Amino acid sequence: MNHQLYDFGMIGLGVMGRNFLLNVADDGFAALGTDIDAESVTALNAEGEGMNVKGVGTQKEFVSLLSKPRKIMLLVPAGKIVDAVIEGLLPLLDDNDIIIDGGNSHYDDTNRRYEYLKTKNIRFLGTGVSGGAEGARRGPSIMPGGDKSAWNDVKSVLETVAAKVNGEPCVTYIGESSSGHYVKMVHNGVEYGLMQLIAEAYDILKRAGGMSNDDMSALFDEWNKGRLNSFLVEISADILKQRDDKMDGHLLDLILDKAKQKGTGKWTSQSAMNLGVPTPTIDAAVTMRGISAFKQFRQDTSKMFEHVHPHDSTLKGQDLAVAVEKALYSSFIITYAQGMHLLAEASEDLNYDLDLEGIARIWRGGCIIRATLLEKIRKAYSKRDGLKNMMATSEFRDELFDCRDSAVDVIATAMQQGIPTLCMSSALNYYDAFRSERLPLNMVQAQRDYFGSHTYERIDQAGIFHTDWGK
Amino acid sequence: MNHQLYDFGMIGLGVMGRNFLLNVADDGFAALGTDIDAESVTALNAEGEGMNVKGVGTQKEFVSLLSKPRKIMLLVPAGKIVDAVIEGLLPLLDDNDIIIDGGNSHYDDTNRRYEYLKTKNIRFLGTGVSGGAEGARRGPSIMPGGDKSAWNDVKSVLETVAAKVNGEPCVTYIGESSSGHYVKMVHNGVEYGLMQLIAEAYDILKRAGGMSNDDMSALFDEWNKGRLNSFLVEISADILKQRDDKMDGHLLDLILDKAKQKGTGKWTSQSAMNLGVPTPTIDAAVTMRGISAFKQFRQDTSKMFEHVHPHDSTLKGQDLAVAVEKALYSSFIITYAQGMHLLAEASEDLNYDLDLEGIARIWRGGCIIRATLLEKIRKAYSKRDGLKNMMATSEFRDELFDCRDSAVDVIATAMQQGIPTLCMSSALNYYDAFRSERLPLNMVQAQRDYFGSHTYERIDQAGIFHTDWGK
Repeated sequence: MNHQLYDFGMIGLGVMGRNFLLNVADDGFAALGTDIDAESVTALNAEGEGMNVKGVGTQKEFVSLLSKPRKIMLLVPAGKIVDAVIEGLLPLLDDNDIIIDGGNSHYDDTNRRYEYLKTKNIRFLGTGVSGGAEGARRGPSIMPGGDKSAWNDVKSVLETVAAKVNGEPCVTYIGESSSGHYVKMVHNGVEYGLMQLIAEAYDILKRAGGMSNDDMSALFDEWNKGRLNSFLVEISADILKQRDDKMDGHLLDLILDKAKQKGTGKWTSQSAMNLGVPTPTIDAAVTMRGISAFKQFRQDTSKMFEHVHPHDSTLKGQDLAVAVEKALYSSFIITYAQGMHLLAEASEDLNYDLDLEGIARIWRGGCIIRATLLEKIRKAYSKRDGLKNMMATSEFRDELFDCRDSAVDVIATAMQQGIPTLCMSSALNYYDAFRSERLPLNMVQAQRDYFGSHTYERIDQAGIFHTDWGK
Repeated sequence: MNHQLYDFGMIGLGVMGRNFLLNVADDGFAALGTDIDAESVTALNAEGEGMNVKGVGTQKEFVSLLSKPRKIMLLVPAGKIVDAVIEGLLPLLDDNDIIIDGGNSHYDDTNRRYEYLKTKNIRFLGTGVSGGAEGARRGPSIMPGGDKSAWNDVKSVLETVAAKVNGEPCVTYIGESSSGHYVKMVHNGVEYGLMQLIAEAYDILKRAGGMSNDDMSALFDEWNKGRLNSFLVEISADILKQRDDKMDGHLLDLILDKAKQKGTGKWTSQSAMNLGVPTPTIDAAVTMRGISAFKQFRQDTSKMFEHVHPHDSTLKGQDLAVAVEKALYSSFIITYAQGMHLLAEASEDLNYDLDLEGIARIWRGGCIIRATLLEKIRKAYSKRDGLKNMMATSEFRDELFDCRDSAVDVIATAMQQGIPTLCMSSALNYYDAFRSERLPLNMVQAQRDYFGSHTYERIDQAGIFHTDWGK
């Protein structure tokens, strides 16, 4: 046998898979790919012309060309396809080979596969990859969890491939079992929140402020130079100024306002509810995507309620723009706080033993939620062992306080005009609820005891109590 | 053999089970119960003294004393205990006997049990029962789903036992498989929403309005005579005036503000997310129970933010009370609308084929969410086949419109004072989102296409599009 052996293999040569593999080859590793779709294989060979990368047509050839222990990443659609690909691979693999699932698999599936592959002596890494097509090519953020020894074997490849911030790679070993996919899921939940918050800011500036797309684009560009600096604010500025290539005008105005979801945002909310962790801003983003899908009903309803005349806007012009920046920034902080708090609780409840500082660190570059703010978050967690919710740290206290009145004014302005701000409102309410030493849930407890004898606790003495109410 | 045979059996003689069985006996049926706890059996025999009701100590005797086909209801804690009781019963039963699970089982479990018991020739009814201990005794609302022939066999008992409204029993056959437990779950989700809305109204009147418990009690009593007439408003009036029997003062002020949840509210939100149906007010109620549980963190946070001085209240006194009534009433409508909308979609997606008018009808009495408003809801659904969301009907349009400005004022007042109103805000935002012909989700779609090539649709032409953004 005289053929070259390859360092790293990829199954699934869609744009993400091809780009990731070209990135691997860029960095000096011999990279091999395969796909059941022959066109994708051809595309890889064309795009990789002159590089140490190759696409082959069969899994058998693919497996035979990888050096051992084999390092095989899957970038295929989450769900049954992952299981099918794994089953197809198993007869071809040797003990200690490594499978890396790089898709958005549900963490329950990843737990199951991790345990199953252990029985087959295959080392498994459920791995979140964020950054989209561009990130995969130039350097994504990578969140691998599962077999620790497998991590040590693929570390050199993944660290080289990952995005860098101040020379530090945006990848770290996340933890046991499904922790990598769990952290990626929460990343996507935060992404849902930030995207909807930006959409609400845009809606307020447009409907209440009467701003043009180009003016909003300039404003977002300006915001992106400040504390709101982030990938999502940056691309929103681009989006706002993009012209349609056929019609005269801005493309954004022609895009249908029905958002789709691929599940990770919803999974974040569902898991948070299971753990009893409040993530209302992520829930609200999932809700708004849901409401947006009922387009016909919204059209009908808007006609029935068109006699609701908007009130005059309290905030206008530059004052509105300044206030929206503050509302958006504090809502961003609160959304990250919800995501990090969920991770802190999941770390205990699901035995992930997460390094929260490390997660904030690898989210600073490459991924969709990368933002200057994450360096501040990283610092807050680095200084405090066991920190769960970062809202009440000195780093964020003053900023949240400073922004609060503006958030109130923006939401009030939006309410007066009939502009929904479910995400922004949820962020403000979350903040106000956590700074309420006393919440009215004593009423809820009294009601539960009244009709269901569910008992209650008291503030003045220990114990469990029941009252024959109304007697 | 010369012993009496009993018409209806109950396993699980906690206060709910005993009361339900006494109710059965009240109505002329011979009622039999058993429990592994001997004290509960003794309690039943004591409470049922002189009535045609009996408690026995073993399942074997219990089964032998029931007329065939046996009608056995379980009121035991949801989860594995239900499976254990069923497994214990199976060897003792005959073909065509009927098991009625009257607890709050998850609909996935009910589906599984329904299919399993079919293979054993046992007819199964997953049945929601609402009304608490008092309802079980005096007449609950009952939501049976599953085997239709079993319903026909137990109909006479359940119709007699159930609460009556205008002579109509608050029970109807809900539909196939797990539909009864699904409808009960959504009932409880709505219950979560209404309870939290009342708690927020109480918090605003107390903190922003400075009202005393007795004045609030009188106000709630007055509300209960109007369109807000409902079990939950009624008991809240009682709760507000209840004195502590040890200390001088109102009991409510001494109750710890940490609310618990038994799962059905959370399940409603999780299922709604799976079906893509927005239920933000129910989600918000789940969130607020979650936040309330972090009592220590709230106390710490409140100290860090105590320098946030409340603004002056815009609304005061009688104006505030009038506005809160409107905000609460419209929020109630919107919460029922979310629950009914979820049922409408579940009816299709889960093949339940629900009769929404019938469900509104049996919720008018006996259950925790009973309210005068439900008669209006029943009428709205009776007049319109296929109605999903009732907000846009002539019945509710004018009321929602009339209340909207007050809801805005109340929420703005609460925001100014730092009083969280996550549920009320979510209701207003839900309404405003559905009456937005155009939502800013075009921005979300553009972002998704920008970083993930997820494509988008357009408003001016059909098809699926992708743009090389920022190029």
